[in-house]
This record gives sequence, C-alpha cells and structure tokens, in this order.
Amino acid sequence: MQIQFLGTGAGMPSKERNTSALAVKLLEERGTFWLFDCGEATQHQILHTTLKPRKLEKIFITHLHGDHILGLPGLLSSRSFQGGEELLTIYGPAGLKQWVELTFQLSQTHLNYPIEFVEVMEGIVFEDEDFIVTAKSLQHVIPCFGYRIVQKPLPGTLQIEKARELDVPNGPLLGQLKKGLDITLEDGRIVKSSDVTGPPKKGFIVTILGDTRSCENAILLSENADIVVHESTFNHATETLAANYGHSTNMDAANVAIKAGAKNLLLNHLSARFFPQDIKNMLQEVQAEFENAHIVEDFAEYEWYQDKLSLYIQE
Amino acid sequence: MQIQFLGTGAGMPSKERNTSALAVKLLEERGTFWLFDCGEATQHQILHTTLKPRKLEKIFITHLHGDHILGLPGLLSSRSFQGGEELLTIYGPAGLKQWVELTFQLSQTHLNYPIEFVEVMEGIVFEDEDFIVTAKSLQHVIPCFGYRIVQKPLPGTLQIEKARELDVPNGPLLGQLKKGLDITLEDGRIVKSSDVTGPPKKGFIVTILGDTRSCENAILLSENADIVVHESTFNHATETLAANYGHSTNMDAANVAIKAGAKNLLLNHLSARFFPQDIKNMLQEVQAEFENAHIVEDFAEYEWYQDKLSLYIQE
Repeated sequence: MQIQFLGTGAGMPSKERNTSALAVKLLEERGTFWLFDCGEATQHQILHTTLKPRKLEKIFITHLHGDHILGLPGLLSSRSFQGGEELLTIYGPAGLKQWVELTFQLSQTHLNYPIEFVEVMEGIVFEDEDFIVTAKSLQHVIPCFGYRIVQKPLPGTLQIEKARELDVPNGPLLGQLKKGLDITLEDGRIVKSSDVTGPPKKGFIVTILGDTRSCENAILLSENADIVVHESTFNHATETLAANYGHSTNMDAANVAIKAGAKNLLLNHLSARFFPQDIKNMLQEVQAEFENAHIVEDFAEYEWYQDKLSLYIQE
Repeated sequence: MQIQFLGTGAGMPSKERNTSALAVKLLEERGTFWLFDCGEATQHQILHTTLKPRKLEKIFITHLHGDHILGLPGLLSSRSFQGGEELLTIYGPAGLKQWVELTFQLSQTHLNYPIEFVEVMEGIVFEDEDFIVTAKSLQHVIPCFGYRIVQKPLPGTLQIEKARELDVPNGPLLGQLKKGLDITLEDGRIVKSSDVTGPPKKGFIVTILGDTRSCENAILLSENADIVVHESTFNHATETLAANYGHSTNMDAANVAIKAGAKNLLLNHLSARFFPQDIKNMLQEVQAEFENAHIVEDFAEYEWYQDKLSLYIQE
C-alpha cells in the first residue's frame, strides 16, 4: 500500500501545491487505487504519475468545498475516454450526486462505465472480505467526514514443511492454503489453512481526515492507526485563524496523533501563505511533540511495507 | 491588444496542452482582460502568466462541454480570494448560470464581488463606447457560439501644431482633444477634436470561434477580421472524425479564413492524438492554403500592434 499525494494545498492552487487529492494505491492488495478528494486539476496531476484512471475503483469525498470536488467531473469524464469500463463508486456527503449529475446533464457527458453514489453518514461506508472503511463527522464550517480504512487480518505465512508433512502436493492447493482457504486432498483428508500457516498478520489502519478543527472524532478515527493524514492549514502563530475558519494547526494534528496512539502522522492541506522556511519551522514544531510526523508535498509517495513507512520522491 | 492562449487542447488535458481558454488582453484599451472559455485548471495556467484575476472583466463561454467550462467555479472563487471586487460579467449559453449557482450553493461559496450572467443569443451581446461583441450560432453537437469583437474607430493622432495655432494651452485640454472630445477654451471659443486630429483610426476585429464543423456562420463572424481563432481538432487525414464529432480540420479553418477575407488565422483546440511531427505537417498543409496561419501553443501570446501580428513566447 502506498499513499501518493496529488494536492497538498488549501483553498486555492499555488504553483507548488494543488488543491486536495490523494491516492491510496492498493495495486498489490486489489489491483486498484482509491482517491480521497478531487480538487480541480486532479486529473492533470495524475498525468504526472503512474496512476491509471481506469484502475480507479473508489472515490471518497470528505466535504463539498470547491477545493475538494471541482476536479471530479473532469476526472470521471477522462476516465471514460481512457478506457475505464469498471464500476466506480463515489462516497460523499449529500448533494454530491445531484451536482455531478447536473454537470453531466448540462455538458451532455456520457460515461462508458457505471457510477454508483453512496451518501456518506457516520458508520461503515464500505466493507468487503479485505477492507472496512468507516466515517465520522468532523468539525468544519460545512458537513465534513473523516475516513478510517482498516485492512482485515491477512493469512499467516505458509509453512511449507508442515504442508509437506501432510502430503499436500505442489500446485494450486498450496496457493489456496496460503490464501487462508481449507482444502480437501484426493484421499478425502481435509487440511485446514490454519494447520499449515503461521498466525494471521495484522492489516494496516490508515486514517484520512478532511478539513476540521481539533475534535474528538478525529482522535477516534485515528485510534492506533499506522498512518494518520491530518490537515495543517495553519501553524502555531496563526492558530486564531484556524479556529475562525474551522481548520487545524500542526500542533492540533500532533495532539490528535498522540491521543490516538497513532504511529505516523502526515500533514497536508497547507495554506499558501507559508514560505519554505515557515514549513521547516512547522515541521520542527510538530516533530518536537510527535516524532514520526512529516509535512507532505505534491507527488510525494509514502509506502507502508512490513510495518514501516518510507518516503519515495518521484523522479 | 494581445491574445494569450491558456489551453489549446481538445477534450482532455495532456501534459502539453490544457483544455480550452484564452485571454484577450485589453490592458491598454480598458485596463482589463477578457476570457474566452474556461476549461479545468485555467486558474492554474493563469498562475504561470502575468494575468491578474482581479482585472478579469468578462468571460465569454462558447458552449457547455466540460473542457470549456469546468475551470469556471474555481477561477471565480479564487478571484474573490485574490482581491477581485469589480463586477464580472459572464456570457454563455442557457444553463450556465444554473450550474455555477448550484456549484456555489453546494460548496457554500460566497464571492466578494458581483457576478452578472448574460444568456447569449445570436446578435449583439455587448456594446459600449469602445467595443461591440456579436455572437452567432455554430454547428457543434450541442449549442455553441462564436464571438466577433469589433473595436470601434479610434480618434486620429493629435496634430499638435494645429492645436497650438488655435492657442490650446498645454495640459488636460489637449488630452481631451486627443480622446476625441471637443473643448471650450477660456475665451469661449470651441475647438473640435476633429479640427486638430487626423482621420479616425480603424479598430481591430478579432473573431473567436467555439467548437464547430465548417459552417457559413463561421465565415460571417470572420469577415475581414484581423485575427480569427479557429478550432482545428483534426487534420486532413482524420476529416471523417471531424465530421462525425462536429469539429473542423486545419483545412476547414483555412477555407473559413479565405472566404471571410481574414488577415490572420490562429488554430487551436488540437486533439492530443497528434505528435509534434503531425503538428508540423498540419501547419505546412494549412499554410499552403492560407499563408498567415499559425498553430498555437499553451502560453503563446500574440500581439496586435500597428496592424501587425507578432508572437511572443513567454520566458
């Protein structure tokens, strides 16, 4: 799993930071990626990555401010031109469906694939065998949600010696046991996956918060998360603005990560008022409170692998 | 007057060409600029120019396809953040107002300046002392307009010797005569502007066409124009596609310019299917028919000065 940031600015695009969007890349896990928010020119940002819109499976929208949604009609439309055929599911607050549909009606846009809209309310918004995504309301100036992605436990490592002791032949049966499935051998014996695999491995927990002032639900969503993506529109010196506009500072974000027992904190949604030196200072401030904090940039990609977070900068 | 191209691609953005938008810069003429179409990420393109959104006075939309309008809400919103306070007038087909208003209602966006919508129909869409803009319907797959901007004749050059002979003192009175205004001297004598200025100078005519297949109205709008901006989504080899999708080829555009007696032809709205060599060939083809033809690029700026067209490439 990798998280690639496509837009890390707040409110308006700047030359350095586009408006909000990030991709959760699940190519190894499910052959797809998910998008969280879709500010204007998200499809333009994607042109400079290896992301293929046809592999976009789900879009989660945190709230309906322009800097989080205005890229949606263009991206949906281009996905159709670029050979996207699979169902795309869009999760977001009430009103999103009406807006996208009016936009397409007005521009007489027809997509070559089906779209499904899910109106988000607090609770489970998506669950299948591998993942569960829950949402909670945050505290912004309009309704806004944060999302928590929990990967369900993965089958343990196949212990090949144990399988051989039970005379499991090489081939597809081994693969089934590896996936956590029980099998029946030719002689009628049943071999349970749990007999030949190690203990289940913990999946990851990633929390992606929308725009919010510091609030209890941000902490609940972030509980024991491996990665928390938290907005940091303002810094300590501008905390009054944060309070007035329903946003957070870097220190608010650190507090959420600490109280939630999170492992890593990625700060995005930075105001364009900050110069590079301000951002260095913001990082120092936040890391003094919470060591595993990072301030993200457009196109930065963070990989979660073997319980560790690594940063890749795209060449 | 300068025309700066902000997006010269068709349908979808590519790394080289954004979706449609161009600025007609009237900074010397009226201290403002006008925008024609506003594809997604037009505000992003503007960040890389010297254009100031607060100086944006009018937006003319040719038609409601996404690649011509999806940048509108973001640009309007950012103009508000960037100190825009003056009235902005938006001219476009029926349905545009409803869409912009729903977008702002949904995202709870409030602008710090007034907007006026003018629903475009054939005929005069704007006229003041200096300019007249007319529209005609083109032939695309949805309703689409082309616009013709005519600058009214300008006062002739002030002939300073003649003014001195009539004892016009130095100072503001000379300025009024220069602007075409008659004045009364201290001794009660009236001096007519026409007595001390040369013959009125012809203003410019610029025609900006939306997406269209070759049609009579494109020619009427382009009659004797100094500059015609014409779409060229396809080339000679792909003319069947042009016919099917309501678009033009480079040769269609040349025919319009020839039949209209236009002076210069700027081709935009190029399909992303074309490689640089294809575009060189397209240019050769069109110039064989109509010498003063150019294929434009994103950020290219053409200046109309003393009846000549010059290209500036932004550094």
